[in-house]
Amino acid sequence: MNHLNSVITHTDIKNLKYDVLDHGFIRVVDVMGNDERVVQSARVSYGAGTKSTSEDKGLINYLVKHKHTTPLEQCLITIHCKLPLFVFAQWVRHRTWKFNCQSYRYSEAANEFYIPENWRKQSSKNKQCSSSDKIENHDFINDTYNTLLSDTKKWYDYNIGTEGVAREMARISLPQSLYTEFYGTVDLHNLLHFISLRDHKHAQYEIRVYAEKLGEIVKQWCPMVWEAFEEHRLNAATLSRSQLEVIKNLLNGTEINEKDAEDIKSHGADNLSKRELNELKEIFDI
Amino acid sequence: MNHLNSVITHTDIKNLKYDVLDHGFIRVVDVMGNDERVVQSARVSYGAGTKSTSEDKGLINYLVKHKHTTPLEQCLITIHCKLPLFVFAQWVRHRTWKFNCQSYRYSEAANEFYIPENWRKQSSKNKQCSSSDKIENHDFINDTYNTLLSDTKKWYDYNIGTEGVAREMARISLPQSLYTEFYGTVDLHNLLHFISLRDHKHAQYEIRVYAEKLGEIVKQWCPMVWEAFEEHRLNAATLSRSQLEVIKNLLNGTEINEKDAEDIKSHGADNLSKRELNELKEIFDI
Amino acid sequence: MNHLNSVITHTDIKNLKYDVLDHGFIRVVDVMGNDERVVQSARVSYGAGTKSTSEDKGLINYLVKHKHTTPLEQCLITIHCKLPLFVFAQWVRHRTWKFNCQSYRYSEAANEFYIPENWRKQSSKNKQCSSSDKIENHDFINDTYNTLLSDTKKWYDYNIGTEGVAREMARISLPQSLYTEFYGTVDLHNLLHFISLRDHKHAQYEIRVYAEKLGEIVKQWCPMVWEAFEEHRLNAATLSRSQLEVIKNLLNGTEINEKDAEDIKSHGADNLSKRELNELKEIFDI
Amino acid sequence: MNHLNSVITHTDIKNLKYDVLDHGFIRVVDVMGNDERVVQSARVSYGAGTKSTSEDKGLINYLVKHKHTTPLEQCLITIHCKLPLFVFAQWVRHRTWKFNCQSYRYSEAANEFYIPENWRKQSSKNKQCSSSDKIENHDFINDTYNTLLSDTKKWYDYNIGTEGVAREMARISLPQSLYTEFYGTVDLHNLLHFISLRDHKHAQYEIRVYAEKLGEIVKQWCPMVWEAFEEHRLNAATLSRSQLEVIKNLLNGTEINEKDAEDIKSHGADNLSKRELNELKEIFDI
Repeated sequence: MNHLNSVITHTDIKNLKYDVLDHGFIRVVDVMGNDERVVQSARVSYGAGTKSTSEDKGLINYLVKHKHTTPLEQCLITIHCKLPLFVFAQWVRHRTWKFNCQSYRYSEAANEFYIPENWRKQSSKNKQCSSSDKIENHDFINDTYNTLLSDTKKWYDYNIGTEGVAREMARISLPQSLYTEFYGTVDLHNLLHFISLRDHKHAQYEIRVYAEKLGEIVKQWCPMVWEAFEEHRLNAATLSRSQLEVIKNLLNGTEINEKDAEDIKSHGADNLSKRELNELKEIFDI
Repeated sequence: MNHLNSVITHTDIKNLKYDVLDHGFIRVVDVMGNDERVVQSARVSYGAGTKSTSEDKGLINYLVKHKHTTPLEQCLITIHCKLPLFVFAQWVRHRTWKFNCQSYRYSEAANEFYIPENWRKQSSKNKQCSSSDKIENHDFINDTYNTLLSDTKKWYDYNIGTEGVAREMARISLPQSLYTEFYGTVDLHNLLHFISLRDHKHAQYEIRVYAEKLGEIVKQWCPMVWEAFEEHRLNAATLSRSQLEVIKNLLNGTEINEKDAEDIKSHGADNLSKRELNELKEIFDI
Repeated sequence: MNHLNSVITHTDIKNLKYDVLDHGFIRVVDVMGNDERVVQSARVSYGAGTKSTSEDKGLINYLVKHKHTTPLEQCLITIHCKLPLFVFAQWVRHRTWKFNCQSYRYSEAANEFYIPENWRKQSSKNKQCSSSDKIENHDFINDTYNTLLSDTKKWYDYNIGTEGVAREMARISLPQSLYTEFYGTVDLHNLLHFISLRDHKHAQYEIRVYAEKLGEIVKQWCPMVWEAFEEHRLNAATLSRSQLEVIKNLLNGTEINEKDAEDIKSHGADNLSKRELNELKEIFDI
Repeated sequence: MNHLNSVITHTDIKNLKYDVLDHGFIRVVDVMGNDERVVQSARVSYGAGTKSTSEDKGLINYLVKHKHTTPLEQCLITIHCKLPLFVFAQWVRHRTWKFNCQSYRYSEAANEFYIPENWRKQSSKNKQCSSSDKIENHDFINDTYNTLLSDTKKWYDYNIGTEGVAREMARISLPQSLYTEFYGTVDLHNLLHFISLRDHKHAQYEIRVYAEKLGEIVKQWCPMVWEAFEEHRLNAATLSRSQLEVIKNLLNGTEINEKDAEDIKSHGADNLSKRELNELKEIFDI
């Protein structure tokens, strides 16, 4: 099935490395499978194979659209990643990754902590998010933060070096901005799921930048799958029963020029929350 | 949080039993958690609790809509199920269920096979589905099928009883319509996922009837979660980027009365496959 | 199967709560299943049921000894747990637990940090462990640690309160000794696996005390399973091929009174590492 | 780390194909990682790397012996496998495999059924196993079995071809000896677990022969891991607390020449079942 050979080779993929944040990185260690493997695996279930690139594209689109996820599970990637502990704490909640991570029981912590370029303000709209407003006393915050880090690292080094405190104990003083490393393996289906949750406007900026880089890797590794994923997941929208009802009424109505909230509501959206209405307006520019 | 107490009790739920197909059943063995547990678990992550039934409903809706699935994983159900082997073969692919199933290495097979009420015809549109057309020679098909079953069971019984053939060997002759049983446990999130895939028009009728019964169980066990699931999953629709574009154009267009395929296409759906266009027309009655 | 009813009831189990470390706890939220459920589930696979308590005990022993783990997966427990972040970081690596955990993006951190009663020394023998030797300047270490915590918490409170820094950012300064909470559900098989790895001499003291309490809970919840687990897992030993060879030679030898390392070696343990030899001596008091 | 390069290359591994049973096979589609990857991954957790082949061997031995399984999870293999349905039904219970399997809803069944070379007798000792005794009327059993298969296949072909019965329905008549195919991916840790359970004297012969071939593949793919697995798992034995007690007494006793059951019992094995005693005698040739 030569027609699926992309210009980029496995060797190229394995050499990909992206710097992330101030000290972090994602480095591809290895991959197994690609667009072609997805097609091959699907063919075991769905019988005789496709023959052209456009048929392969169609099949991959169909699989992604209809969430036939098992052929995507036959492609795997191993990365080496360096990241702050608080980012890893979110990452590790994805139970389909297989991790080997650095242990500060075994090895001593280096002097590497995440120093934000911008200290973001609390969002007033979303309890879990930052706002995009500029913080005022940025330098003061940064300076005092650096002093804290420096004091903590001194305490840690002294107690390990001079007092002989066990590494597993001394580390409990270190902040969550400390960098750590892992080797991690995941299949393509679960990687895309990770990206859809973490390269998301509600995700914290610091994990989002890692998720973005993973997206760039997938784009080069499995370009057809990535295209289908953008079409049917990243830029798609799931409309609830009530939302579908509103749109249906609008499409069949006669007065669709008055497109304000009240109007939409009067077209059958009695059960629709304000939040869902706004969502619709945003999606459809109405 | 008494306001969440539904009229149906845990004891009622544990007594639920549904007959399915000719010899099958689903019997609830036990449940852990309910709507209230979902709220409690979410509260650990999201801080101070809600106070009224309507707030709880809102929280549950939010969780289901935004796929915050972990609170739903804190509710679990164990069922005892009897079903044909070919249905179990589909069921067992859902790796989040924990099974104990009958082994025909240990125990002898009873004379229980699934006899379809209707022998459905092959669909000409969908490679994997039946059509709804009536088959002509139903009685003839049924009679010859019953003869096959009877011959096979005789062979099995004779070889086990008289020849002393090992159970693990004799069973290989038995057809996939043989009934088997299992004890199975699954969490609510994965149960809903199962239902969304198996109570689906593309699923085979014989597993669909089991999925429907599971839906009825959830409806009584966790009524708020079920309502949110119907709204945001079962009766929702995911529109691709191109599909969203079409709707957007239609909503902002001036000539939306001419709603035929060509028209829709001219509103910006150049990339839209025929299949996706038809899907839109079906969803929105246009 | 009334004979399996233990004196302790489900309600008793659900009221269990243990304090752990200085601010932590494990509280049972709910359980599903018990010894009897294990027997019932196994019976689905293995045919007609047992009839007496001693037969049930025998069956449970057999299941645990031979790692027939699926019947144990039909029993589940949900706990509410409060613990330091560095303990949770180890816990969360067990991917079979289902967690809802407190998020410091949503809620503000309280002033609760783990203060060790003893600052342990680094083990010279094991790279990852503490030694049991008393540390000398305990009070000095403790005082400076408390100062660090206090400075950090002040920085955090000031930046959240006065500067309006987002919670998701300010938290990165907080140390891994900060307390957090989770709701977690796990099945009995994987809970025992957790206990066997974490209530272990190589595990860090601070997670070991949690694992011990979990053991006490299982002992009351499923006493027969616990007994079998102690017999076949916790106090069992796996001997390698070479270790078995040594013991075989010793048992069949004529000079087994000279039991020092050289002697054992001459009985056929050419491939045995010093570490494995010492292990044997320790296990068998030789 | 060139010293780990084995003579066999990734390309050689990917060309491995074994015939199994009368129509089955296992073909390696792809592998990711090897002995060297295990060492690399472990090094992320355990700090600075090893430098020689013998150190790598030691590390791998340590990991396998102490069940530090995560570095083994970084190695993965995809196979293409053809096997009877009743073997697949056992295989699919291993939830860590990722499968794409042939669907007889999509494609028509070929005329390929498993015909045993030997019809084994039921074991009188083990409820689930065959005995090694020769069955008497082998030819008669075989002939009548072939007649059954032929009648069934005729019924299937006629109903699909002439009556237009849906494939998803007609297939329910087909016996579990029907061959099917899958693409499957698994990590090395879970593959070894599969082998330890399925290349086992209690496993059914027909799955055992597949497990044996998988063992031959691992032996060539990751020779160091395989050696450690043979030493610490395949040919190891786990002794229960009571069994350890018996051996301890025997080793420290004075009258170990009288090695019959009574004698062993008198050395402290009051709680030891007859089964466990016999097990000990078998392990140690006493």
